Amino acid sequence: MDWRKDSLELLDQRKIPKSKEYIQCKSLEEVIHAIKEMIVRGAPAIALSGLFGIVLYLKSLSKKPEYSELKAKLDELLASRPTAVNLRLALQSFQTIISSENFSKLSLNDLILDAENFALNEFSKDLETNISIARNGMEIFKNKNAPLEFITHCNTGAIATAGVGTAIGVFRALKSENIPFHVYVDETRPYLQGSRLTAWELMEENISCTILADNMAGWLMNEKNIDAVIVGADRIASNGDTANKIGTYSLAILAKEHNVPFYVAASATSFDFKIKSGKEIKIEMRDETELTQYSFLKNSQGKNLIEEGIFSPIGARAINPSFDITPAKYITGIITERGVISPVSENLIQSMMSKTF
Amino acid sequence: MDWRKDSLELLDQRKIPKSKEYIQCKSLEEVIHAIKEMIVRGAPAIALSGLFGIVLYLKSLSKKPEYSELKAKLDELLASRPTAVNLRLALQSFQTIISSENFSKLSLNDLILDAENFALNEFSKDLETNISIARNGMEIFKNKNAPLEFITHCNTGAIATAGVGTAIGVFRALKSENIPFHVYVDETRPYLQGSRLTAWELMEENISCTILADNMAGWLMNEKNIDAVIVGADRIASNGDTANKIGTYSLAILAKEHNVPFYVAASATSFDFKIKSGKEIKIEMRDETELTQYSFLKNSQGKNLIEEGIFSPIGARAINPSFDITPAKYITGIITERGVISPVSENLIQSMMSKTF
Repeated sequence: MDWRKDSLELLDQRKIPKSKEYIQCKSLEEVIHAIKEMIVRGAPAIALSGLFGIVLYLKSLSKKPEYSELKAKLDELLASRPTAVNLRLALQSFQTIISSENFSKLSLNDLILDAENFALNEFSKDLETNISIARNGMEIFKNKNAPLEFITHCNTGAIATAGVGTAIGVFRALKSENIPFHVYVDETRPYLQGSRLTAWELMEENISCTILADNMAGWLMNEKNIDAVIVGADRIASNGDTANKIGTYSLAILAKEHNVPFYVAASATSFDFKIKSGKEIKIEMRDETELTQYSFLKNSQGKNLIEEGIFSPIGARAINPSFDITPAKYITGIITERGVISPVSENLIQSMMSKTF
Repeated sequence: MDWRKDSLELLDQRKIPKSKEYIQCKSLEEVIHAIKEMIVRGAPAIALSGLFGIVLYLKSLSKKPEYSELKAKLDELLASRPTAVNLRLALQSFQTIISSENFSKLSLNDLILDAENFALNEFSKDLETNISIARNGMEIFKNKNAPLEFITHCNTGAIATAGVGTAIGVFRALKSENIPFHVYVDETRPYLQGSRLTAWELMEENISCTILADNMAGWLMNEKNIDAVIVGADRIASNGDTANKIGTYSLAILAKEHNVPFYVAASATSFDFKIKSGKEIKIEMRDETELTQYSFLKNSQGKNLIEEGIFSPIGARAINPSFDITPAKYITGIITERGVISPVSENLIQSMMSKTF
């Protein structure tokens, strides 16, 4: 992700690992499109893209907008990925800076400057946060018997954040300490963030890894001595219940059954204290064709790379929940930039996360 | 599957649901190829194909083979799919009929006749077996509160057997009794037997079904009131431990955690009393590219339907176990043609399955 003052450059994550292509977003609409179409994904990266999108919106105006116009744009942006709490929190922070009260006193130029500074500041905060999460996670494992073996799910890497990533950040930190380890990467159906993105990132870092189908994790835990599962989070409720990529919940149950520690690596901004438990998190349902058709994999001419219907009969129905909720009781610890919350309890979360951010 | 005296016609299961194409196997080598390449799959269908393959081998000869030559062919056939016990048992039964002792007394013509009668007899036995399994399974559910909701994994249907299928047979029987129900079909990575084959078979029968990614089963069990998981079996040990398509073990753990009954539907020939437990079953590892490349999906010109490497970085490693072992303790019952074994214990298995077959 690269901010170029009049555009936001995003790595087109749909093209990884086939090619490394960048997309220039020159307007808020293009940023919203990039979020919806998964050109950019990962909760922190979505939030940061959104903030730069607002700057692009303000820069596109010839005169200062009404407050209600700005508010409508923020709502439209938020609707592009309703489950990701980071985006919502970032937009809330933005609105406390540019409140309706302040708004009347500010010129269009002031607004642009404030929005841009806010976005750049959030960007560097995310960088630092990632490094702290990585270090705190590494501390858990550095004295264990090497070689270590991990399972991860989805993508939590540099391309999902401004920095080194959350769960992948822990792996990068272990690598930088020369601790021998291996990562098993769930392919993460239907969007294959694991085999397409995580495997790519790990291989770029020369981290030893193996792809497996999501349904092989139980077998693997039985077969190998897995030291831990480490995943990311899209949103964590006050009690520690964690919304993350579909399949995380199943993986947590399998880990419990095999006595494998199960860690969530996430920043303080992933906590949503407005909700008491995971029951209040609405699960976003995505298009059925991601499961039945692979039509989302298009080549550079927009042509489907695979014939429609090849993977399932024409007219077949599918369900496609983006996320699931892993109850806190399955989570050994939450690795944050402020330390590791373990055991996961509402009290410990409160005491470690109560500082405002 | 259609036996035509000088060839065996097989539905090319790799082409389903895209097209309904048949392949004519005119030699044992072609049958072995069809088994290895998954043109034919499903333990009973593999066993029957193998038996007809032997007939084709005998018919190709101009003079009676040495017993050791015949034996070598049987071994070669068995090696095409080592995990499937049905094939091994069928070949053993065949060898008791055509023992080295009998062999010397038989002409080539006798051998051909005996082999063909044996294969045809096994074929009609499989038909009857399927119908009995279906009826016994249906009895478990017919008085429960409808509409019923099931999860199934892989393909256990008519195209995997001579008859109506095992787990799918139960669904067919429920349909024929006009009991309202819905089936959730695991897509079953990496080979997608669920979304490609099972969804196709169920839709052909107008059975209401929905495809889900394997990693969604935990979420689904939490979301819906699932009445049962029903799967097939490739091989069942004396103690009830069951080898079945990779992912079955994970699904069984998820079912236990959600108090969902977990049934295996399988014929008596699936039991392998030579092995005490699942620990003795060797898991066949398949090609990594099934996970990383989709190169197994070729069009009619043999061209890959998807560019190589698109799903994972070039050079990425993967593991690809075909099967896993579900310990008996996770299995609520085994639905056989002789009745339902529940609870699953070595004693009950012995008493119900002790008749020779």
